[in-house]
Amino acid sequence: MHGRLGHMTAVPGKRDAVIAILLDGSKAMPGCLSYVVAQDPTDPEGIWITEVWESQASHKASLSLPAVKDAITRARPLVAGFDKPIETVPVGGYGLHPGA
Amino acid sequence: MHGRLGHMTAVPGKRDAVIAILLDGSKAMPGCLSYVVAQDPTDPEGIWITEVWESQASHKASLSLPAVKDAITRARPLVAGFDKPIETVPVGGYGLHPGA
Repeated sequence: MHGRLGHMTAVPGKRDAVIAILLDGSKAMPGCLSYVVAQDPTDPEGIWITEVWESQASHKASLSLPAVKDAITRARPLVAGFDKPIETVPVGGYGLHPGA
Repeated sequence: MHGRLGHMTAVPGKRDAVIAILLDGSKAMPGCLSYVVAQDPTDPEGIWITEVWESQASHKASLSLPAVKDAITRARPLVAGFDKPIETVPVGGYGLHPGA
């Protein structure tokens, strides 16, 4: 499995809008086992995204899905910056379910 | 919801043993919506644990469950250290399911 812990910062006042786009754009991603969007309680514009994929390839393929490309296009003007994601190798646990 | 991104370091050579204990001890935790254990690919002894709970209270209550207390007792001598967990406020996503 392939895991990603990502942090991004929204343009001031736009965190809720970015979160809505992320949730809307991530509903049907083949190979996605978990995709959780969270507010960063230490930063009013901070967003954490934690993801688990069947493989790095399934994550990369998701970036070509029309819904994901559309979400990226809509979110881009509302995002001030991304940190480099922390990559992990999930080995098990609870809440991992094959997606669409 | 309450999220936690935790990183710990196993005693050299004991990462697989710690992961096995974590997975075994986390099977039936009321209020747990996601609990994923991952290897840190940048550190042969590093472990990432990403958790989503219904509330901070349900996380705290889990620490009193017999299975969790037993896992902590078994893992303690195999763990070299913990980082302070990153706390988040999950708002939605995929793979969040009520547990036991």
